[in-house]
Amino acid sequence: MARSSAWLSLSLSFLVLFNGCFGRRQSFHGQESQNEKCQLSQIHAIRPTGNIPAEGGTTEFWDPNHEQFQCGGAYAFRHIIQPNGLFLPSYTSAPLVAYVLQGSGEYGIIVPGCAETYQQSEKGSEILDKYQKIRYYEKGDIIVIPASAVHWFYNQNREPTILVVLQRANPVSFFLAGKPGSSHQGQREQGRQQQELMTERLGYDGNILAGFDVQIVKDALNTDRETAEKIIGGNARGRGHIVIVQQLPSRPEQRRQPGRQGGGSSNALEETLCTATFTQNIDNRERADIYDSRAGRLTTLNSFTLPALSFVRLSAARGFLNKNWGLVPQWSMNAHSFLYVTKGSALIQIVNQRGDTILNEQVQEGQLFLVPQNFAVVKQAGDEGFEWVEFSTNENAMYNTFSGRRSTLAGMPADIIAASYDLSKSQAQNLKDNMSSLWFYQASGSSPSSSSSSGRSAFI
Amino acid sequence: MARSSAWLSLSLSFLVLFNGCFGRRQSFHGQESQNEKCQLSQIHAIRPTGNIPAEGGTTEFWDPNHEQFQCGGAYAFRHIIQPNGLFLPSYTSAPLVAYVLQGSGEYGIIVPGCAETYQQSEKGSEILDKYQKIRYYEKGDIIVIPASAVHWFYNQNREPTILVVLQRANPVSFFLAGKPGSSHQGQREQGRQQQELMTERLGYDGNILAGFDVQIVKDALNTDRETAEKIIGGNARGRGHIVIVQQLPSRPEQRRQPGRQGGGSSNALEETLCTATFTQNIDNRERADIYDSRAGRLTTLNSFTLPALSFVRLSAARGFLNKNWGLVPQWSMNAHSFLYVTKGSALIQIVNQRGDTILNEQVQEGQLFLVPQNFAVVKQAGDEGFEWVEFSTNENAMYNTFSGRRSTLAGMPADIIAASYDLSKSQAQNLKDNMSSLWFYQASGSSPSSSSSSGRSAFI
Amino acid sequence: MARSSAWLSLSLSFLVLFNGCFGRRQSFHGQESQNEKCQLSQIHAIRPTGNIPAEGGTTEFWDPNHEQFQCGGAYAFRHIIQPNGLFLPSYTSAPLVAYVLQGSGEYGIIVPGCAETYQQSEKGSEILDKYQKIRYYEKGDIIVIPASAVHWFYNQNREPTILVVLQRANPVSFFLAGKPGSSHQGQREQGRQQQELMTERLGYDGNILAGFDVQIVKDALNTDRETAEKIIGGNARGRGHIVIVQQLPSRPEQRRQPGRQGGGSSNALEETLCTATFTQNIDNRERADIYDSRAGRLTTLNSFTLPALSFVRLSAARGFLNKNWGLVPQWSMNAHSFLYVTKGSALIQIVNQRGDTILNEQVQEGQLFLVPQNFAVVKQAGDEGFEWVEFSTNENAMYNTFSGRRSTLAGMPADIIAASYDLSKSQAQNLKDNMSSLWFYQASGSSPSSSSSSGRSAFI
Repeated sequence: MARSSAWLSLSLSFLVLFNGCFGRRQSFHGQESQNEKCQLSQIHAIRPTGNIPAEGGTTEFWDPNHEQFQCGGAYAFRHIIQPNGLFLPSYTSAPLVAYVLQGSGEYGIIVPGCAETYQQSEKGSEILDKYQKIRYYEKGDIIVIPASAVHWFYNQNREPTILVVLQRANPVSFFLAGKPGSSHQGQREQGRQQQELMTERLGYDGNILAGFDVQIVKDALNTDRETAEKIIGGNARGRGHIVIVQQLPSRPEQRRQPGRQGGGSSNALEETLCTATFTQNIDNRERADIYDSRAGRLTTLNSFTLPALSFVRLSAARGFLNKNWGLVPQWSMNAHSFLYVTKGSALIQIVNQRGDTILNEQVQEGQLFLVPQNFAVVKQAGDEGFEWVEFSTNENAMYNTFSGRRSTLAGMPADIIAASYDLSKSQAQNLKDNMSSLWFYQASGSSPSSSSSSGRSAFI
Repeated sequence: MARSSAWLSLSLSFLVLFNGCFGRRQSFHGQESQNEKCQLSQIHAIRPTGNIPAEGGTTEFWDPNHEQFQCGGAYAFRHIIQPNGLFLPSYTSAPLVAYVLQGSGEYGIIVPGCAETYQQSEKGSEILDKYQKIRYYEKGDIIVIPASAVHWFYNQNREPTILVVLQRANPVSFFLAGKPGSSHQGQREQGRQQQELMTERLGYDGNILAGFDVQIVKDALNTDRETAEKIIGGNARGRGHIVIVQQLPSRPEQRRQPGRQGGGSSNALEETLCTATFTQNIDNRERADIYDSRAGRLTTLNSFTLPALSFVRLSAARGFLNKNWGLVPQWSMNAHSFLYVTKGSALIQIVNQRGDTILNEQVQEGQLFLVPQNFAVVKQAGDEGFEWVEFSTNENAMYNTFSGRRSTLAGMPADIIAASYDLSKSQAQNLKDNMSSLWFYQASGSSPSSSSSSGRSAFI
Repeated sequence: MARSSAWLSLSLSFLVLFNGCFGRRQSFHGQESQNEKCQLSQIHAIRPTGNIPAEGGTTEFWDPNHEQFQCGGAYAFRHIIQPNGLFLPSYTSAPLVAYVLQGSGEYGIIVPGCAETYQQSEKGSEILDKYQKIRYYEKGDIIVIPASAVHWFYNQNREPTILVVLQRANPVSFFLAGKPGSSHQGQREQGRQQQELMTERLGYDGNILAGFDVQIVKDALNTDRETAEKIIGGNARGRGHIVIVQQLPSRPEQRRQPGRQGGGSSNALEETLCTATFTQNIDNRERADIYDSRAGRLTTLNSFTLPALSFVRLSAARGFLNKNWGLVPQWSMNAHSFLYVTKGSALIQIVNQRGDTILNEQVQEGQLFLVPQNFAVVKQAGDEGFEWVEFSTNENAMYNTFSGRRSTLAGMPADIIAASYDLSKSQAQNLKDNMSSLWFYQASGSSPSSSSSSGRSAFI
């Protein structure tokens, strides 16, 4: 039952993908403009190549000139926000998706035109503060932030927050406060140069209000000169884009109700940005789309399950593979995917159209690599198992498998398979009949077995 | 009341923008492809750099290689059509939006597949001419012309017509008549060279029918050789793309009914191209979206108020600021904007992501400048006040303000503001509480006051 | 009657085009990015420039670096599949449209998520094979294949199959079987070099499964080592991408019902990919949109008549002109078109914005040429008549005519025509009154006559 409804929703989603505006356009856009940048002779899983330190944390970046990011049309970052660290309010020219690798805290997205519906009065005081909804994040959350929308993060807890972020290409950040700049903590000469270039390129050294005359800021904000000078960053130099804030009072928590943890509304038209959910947890075992008690599980998040993803034309997935289990060979039909290893290791093979193995290595925790659109990929967990988060450049990424019960091979007549691979008809039929698994396979050496999968998924 | 419904429609329009095809795609398209061209170290307000003269008027152009136009992905022109001047029938590869700076007259847009529903019989004659609707323009109108649609303009009045035009990048014009060419009136040597290059680049020297054999034109039009020869431009050389027509009889006027002056239908699906409104006046004070008797007013035109704008993915706005009043700092979330100064002057400051002031000057009547997407801008009227028309590269341009009652700062909790700017909690709360204005601020020196704004607008 | 409803549907389709997502985006995309590549000083009708031979056929290609393909953003191929030839299963990074110039056979498109609803049990055997729908093609069919969808062709008949294919730019093929490679049959040295480059560039030398470890393929497919080795192409070298298959049993035919031959459903939302029609015949005389017993006929296929075309953002048309008849001068408003001459010859003139005749030749059977968007074109059949198939880079290509009863000239007031062409008012009125034909004209020398056209069409 669960299985058949999964396939129903899958073919529906495939349909919508092809009929919908974005899937289609995205798909072509990707192909037309990025094909030339995707003639990669090899890919390697890599760690961040530099960082931009600040008083209250640091932003690690992968070199955006690396050909993986050129091909994928996206950049990756890892923000580390220390306890009491405030990632200053900013907006970016490109939308982003973040995965909370560690920690928890609060954040805000200011949506123009939405009312300040939350209010707070300080104890024993007449002061009443009204503001837009404050949101909360915790480990395992995917956070979606549309382009040009002001946002901030505050880590009011004891553990550092780590965000793994994928952002469409050429992002520029516009900070509304501070004089971010870098604090050059313990960088070697070469690293410092790259750091300065990236700081400048990304806009991490600017406060856009700093470019206005202080008199204009004073007049426009109807405030006094001292405040205006602070706003344009007078005494913020050297603290960087994440500052330590000791005095922030703990807010009476306006926690998300469990019922609003996403997945509820699949009607993007009914969802208004003012009340939209920008966060959803994908670590939770119960949310898995594909679950096999022996092999592992997969959880996908797309614009059907988190409508805000359609604002950013990105999607995300989370995977867990147990020791010696693999995911059957597959390819993405409409998206480039970036995989970040959160735990364990795996043997990854990626093959291009010529049959060249352009990645063939044991990837490790903390590494990131690209699986280009249309390229074939296989993942096989190492001895400690394999856990990863995956970002795709389409809000409804679609996968096609080579083998498995619902695969391409399963859909072909046995005589065409026989003719294609120079097999006898009965060999071909056997091949089809033995593909009992949907998604997982067991590496030999371990006892062979068919895995049973269930659930709803965009992996087909 | 008016105010709250304004915000309702605003947040609705914001929603639609993010959900709609075009806002979203446009936004990404702009970011992805134009970011690199928008690393501008400075911007200047500039006047046209050359012109293409003709018998019945002239077309002034801004140098399309100028980095402002490269970043904005659009070109600007100023057509001057003398009395009795006919801008010859042509179509262009890119859509355009025109503002009627001066004059009035008639124009036609030939929409394929629409019936010739207008007819005219000459006095005392049996001749019956049927044709598609003739349209009228007057000072203050915005005119929308879709790509590849044949159009012509005729100035039957005494005052020269001046059209300020914004067109998406790399426009090429295909003239159906004349042998436009340039007439080289009083150009210096260097200007002449640039003029010839632009004439060629824009297609102002061609009549596309001139490339066919006269015999084929004669056969295809089922006419005689003399007419065919005239059609391919036999004796039109040197008159250029705007010709003087003395004999054009004045047509019994088929004026637009006031009720059709736009704003009526917001349902693009019900509006057919055959009956579509391509014109709407934005000078009219009653149409202002934001009006403040002391400070000034703003009128915006987007695809909700003029559905034809969705065909061209452009929008327009008109602004008036009184002496010493300014518009609060803001940025555009999804569009590049080109501002043309129609009267007076203003101090403009534009700030990039690094906090660099890339434009900081007193702009004057007749000048044009770009405000790049995401860049912060402030406008403060000079002694004569400031009037401008604004073209944006999104059919629903969205703005976000830094200060003001519905601004980004207003949406943030006071403690985050305090932490961001190193203010005390009460300073931060005061800052929020004092932002009583929505859009306007008064430059100091003049008596401070809160301005009240009302109306509907896309400025938030 | 037929005529007026034709115009109704035309203006409707024009509307939808401008309102719809794809028409609009496509149109702009084309203009913005390809204008610079379309500054062609001349165009020639050309034959294929190279070929990739294989055991069971050959793929002829036009040089993709040729400026026509750069401007049009598409590539053209001609696949020849010999009797018993199997074009191996593959998918491509760009969607394609194919015209069956000769032959018939079967093909499959494997759609992920669709059920294997067809089954076959061999005579006297217990073996039951289930697979996805098998489809049939015959001469005159247009076949649509979405990007990234696995497909194969098998020619089980006696005549070679010839497919003329248009594919969006930079297509890369991913073969699932064989070790295609080229077999270098009778190529001269220079041709061989180009052939190798193209083979590599297009991915015709690869089997993507060949890049995986045989052990992984064995495990993932739950099969034995021998089969796994065959699958990764162990003994397929040198047979190429089309192989001869002698043993393929003839399948009990599951022919398309005539009622499903397309045109039925115009509601893309109701059509699911699993049951979608990917084929429609456009040779059939009864399907003509425009038919004139003396002049010829035109049949267009767009996303309204074959919804699958909206998946690929391409459309097709088929034209027949009798000796000495021509199609009136026209231009495409939103698409580049590639014309392949299937029979006879014609004088073609193509004119750019400057009035330069960039193509002016007698095109012949087997040649292909581009008509760039917005450029004016006239076609006049030679002594043997003229037959062609046309591929356009928009799923709803729109044409505008200069002359004819529903043309641009017909829509303009006579006095504007008179003023534009320096004609008298009565000459202008005569010109309009004599344009009695809609689409066709008769070359002089032959007896002049008005042609009557009827039917539904996207040519306006």
